[in-house]
Amino acid sequence: MSEFQALKQQCYEANMQLPKLGLVLFTFGNASVVDRERSVFAIKPSGVPYDTLQPEDIVIVDFEGNPVEGSKRPSSDTKTHALLFKQWTGIGGIVHTHSTYATAWAQTQLDIPILGTTHADHLTADVPCAPPMSDELIEGDYEHQTGWQIINEFEKRSLSPSEVEMILVGNHAPFTWGKTVEKAVYHSAVLEELARLAYLSCTLRPGVSRLKDALIRKHYERKHGANSYYGQS
Amino acid sequence: MSEFQALKQQCYEANMQLPKLGLVLFTFGNASVVDRERSVFAIKPSGVPYDTLQPEDIVIVDFEGNPVEGSKRPSSDTKTHALLFKQWTGIGGIVHTHSTYATAWAQTQLDIPILGTTHADHLTADVPCAPPMSDELIEGDYEHQTGWQIINEFEKRSLSPSEVEMILVGNHAPFTWGKTVEKAVYHSAVLEELARLAYLSCTLRPGVSRLKDALIRKHYERKHGANSYYGQS
Amino acid sequence: MSEFQALKQQCYEANMQLPKLGLVLFTFGNASVVDRERSVFAIKPSGVPYDTLQPEDIVIVDFEGNPVEGSKRPSSDTKTHALLFKQWTGIGGIVHTHSTYATAWAQTQLDIPILGTTHADHLTADVPCAPPMSDELIEGDYEHQTGWQIINEFEKRSLSPSEVEMILVGNHAPFTWGKTVEKAVYHSAVLEELARLAYLSCTLRPGVSRLKDALIRKHYERKHGANSYYGQS
Amino acid sequence: MSEFQALKQQCYEANMQLPKLGLVLFTFGNASVVDRERSVFAIKPSGVPYDTLQPEDIVIVDFEGNPVEGSKRPSSDTKTHALLFKQWTGIGGIVHTHSTYATAWAQTQLDIPILGTTHADHLTADVPCAPPMSDELIEGDYEHQTGWQIINEFEKRSLSPSEVEMILVGNHAPFTWGKTVEKAVYHSAVLEELARLAYLSCTLRPGVSRLKDALIRKHYERKHGANSYYGQS
Repeated sequence: MSEFQALKQQCYEANMQLPKLGLVLFTFGNASVVDRERSVFAIKPSGVPYDTLQPEDIVIVDFEGNPVEGSKRPSSDTKTHALLFKQWTGIGGIVHTHSTYATAWAQTQLDIPILGTTHADHLTADVPCAPPMSDELIEGDYEHQTGWQIINEFEKRSLSPSEVEMILVGNHAPFTWGKTVEKAVYHSAVLEELARLAYLSCTLRPGVSRLKDALIRKHYERKHGANSYYGQS
Repeated sequence: MSEFQALKQQCYEANMQLPKLGLVLFTFGNASVVDRERSVFAIKPSGVPYDTLQPEDIVIVDFEGNPVEGSKRPSSDTKTHALLFKQWTGIGGIVHTHSTYATAWAQTQLDIPILGTTHADHLTADVPCAPPMSDELIEGDYEHQTGWQIINEFEKRSLSPSEVEMILVGNHAPFTWGKTVEKAVYHSAVLEELARLAYLSCTLRPGVSRLKDALIRKHYERKHGANSYYGQS
Repeated sequence: MSEFQALKQQCYEANMQLPKLGLVLFTFGNASVVDRERSVFAIKPSGVPYDTLQPEDIVIVDFEGNPVEGSKRPSSDTKTHALLFKQWTGIGGIVHTHSTYATAWAQTQLDIPILGTTHADHLTADVPCAPPMSDELIEGDYEHQTGWQIINEFEKRSLSPSEVEMILVGNHAPFTWGKTVEKAVYHSAVLEELARLAYLSCTLRPGVSRLKDALIRKHYERKHGANSYYGQS
Repeated sequence: MSEFQALKQQCYEANMQLPKLGLVLFTFGNASVVDRERSVFAIKPSGVPYDTLQPEDIVIVDFEGNPVEGSKRPSSDTKTHALLFKQWTGIGGIVHTHSTYATAWAQTQLDIPILGTTHADHLTADVPCAPPMSDELIEGDYEHQTGWQIINEFEKRSLSPSEVEMILVGNHAPFTWGKTVEKAVYHSAVLEELARLAYLSCTLRPGVSRLKDALIRKHYERKHGANSYYGQS
């Protein structure tokens, strides 16, 4: 039996949450889970429909994107996951979807503005939208460069991937992550709802104002601060 | 067996209606039921997912928000519920959600205008949107102040909580209530539909007119007036 | 056993289609079936939820709106149905809902323009929106006057209720009808989809043009004309 | 047993996918499968609801639209399918729906612009919207002319039906096709999602820019190019 059995099972279960949460159509998405001790991660195979996906189809890959175990070709987005796992050592799982409202925002190249406490419960910044990369980078090692596109945008904006756990890749679609892959899946569903709320507010009242700082701090702190009092301890 | 068993069961069942009616994502909502004789209320525990929630998880709290029975931490919004139950002695249940269309309206800080008879069947006023509170209040006893924010808005507008049983807290989300918690749940679903109808009408025809007074009175009276003839007697 | 047993059963089944087709929330709708020989019709009782509705709850009423059989109070919209059945002798069933997109159009007091062949497959005119009635009429015999509001709008526009089988009552909601109640239910679902399509087209391209006459005629005729070739003969 | 048994079964199964994928209301759609050796195709009968459709109801028709086998009248759109199969010898199946977002775009007579990689994963062009045909053609052999309307639009734009496998017929609705009918069904679902994404982006940011060429090429090539690396080999 493979030493990666549990990792594959966890990855499989996370992937199966995506259609259940209404975040993927056909094969448009993938989830991955890292094993920091072995420096590998498990990821969905490319183009396999969710209704036939099995735990043993999950592919094990190293941080350069090289296959370690599995008979199938890994997701075409594997190199993006690999770079994020390699560079951001605090994250445990990554999810990529083309969920409808988040992708519609990515297509506009606009950040999703923080307009309410639902957003502030999860992050204190607008959801960043990274601009498309240069033609040279696109024509080069595209998926690897997509990883840099995300990381560079975080550095440019001085954002921490442990505080802002989601991004829109401009003209493409969202990526989310988290300490665990279950958290990454949760962030994908939250992002889709934040994108939908902001779409509705912005079309109803163009030029709507951002949430004020005191409310941003209050809602974020009550869930994530040192004295948080949300949830069970 | 707890003297609050029936109260917990009623609270549990009301909470379980929220995901069934499509009003909550993950844990974004809570319902509470008061016991006026004992001056306590039952409320959902904080951050517990609906699919694992059990009747025995429900927490009993007094009108100052102090825990009376239960091993879990109550909802982080408990002090808002507590103040409303204490001040508004005619209400029996409260529901808070982040339902999509109502929350999108709250994010715009606009009242939901009364545009049709679906709205007038339930209330004769626009659904009020309370402005965000001052930074001092936010940084103080926030959830308690949210209760005052709601009550003060009703006083400022001379609205009665027995006639208007819903409000949007600006930049946050809706609260609804009713003589019973079942009515409060019903009002949350009605509010979400009123918010959706008004969103569609306002984006289709910006500047659309409010419903005329004669129709407001007629529809409200046939359901709620002294000579109402809607429903079974 | 009641002589109206079959009529009640047919009415019950038509009413139960409304939540199944996503056209009603809670009790916001009703369907009725006429018995032309006995000059009565069957209609849903007022305010009874669909999930507890039984065939024996259906009420039998005459064309003046007087109860003939049944222990429950009939729908509060009964007098509107009664007048339509009395005046329009070719119709066999009526449906009233507050379906979302159709109601949002009614709230704007705009006709639903004929923009495509989906619309022309069912009717050659814009879906008419009747203006709200005068305050005097509202304060009088309101539901009876709603029937006249519909009939007068058809006369004013020279429309035939056998060709245009749907209307929006301004600021209120849609009514549909048909040779049978099953057709009336079908028209309610079709109207909701036409309303949704037109909402999307009008918000995507404000000022979008009406369908040209040749296409209106072609699509209507191939389904409803003397030489129709749609469906099975 | 009919020599067309397998063809009918395949056609039946493709048709049954349409309501399952949320692409049709009532009978508003049809799928067909060609048998190139016998120069016939199988198509849904006209106006038969999906929930009563049986494999033996499927009709076999030749490329002039003449019935070859089956007791039912074929889809009223049969002559459009016939011409496309006759002229475009590389396609194996065709699907026609009135899916909501695609039809709303068709009603505006606008192409669906390529705004993101979800679109470029499937085609490198805007989804073409063919203008309505002249009144003379509408009044003539309408469904046959609809086939020419599609083919002529492809020729005018120098598009290949093996690369662009979908079109909007202006004021009407979408048609899609593919090497197999399963691919044609897939393209109908993809088109509906592209139409929805573009609707949201265009209403959120009017005048939003098209995807840049390097990204169009990259995403199309990684799925469809000589060196494609998407999916399993």
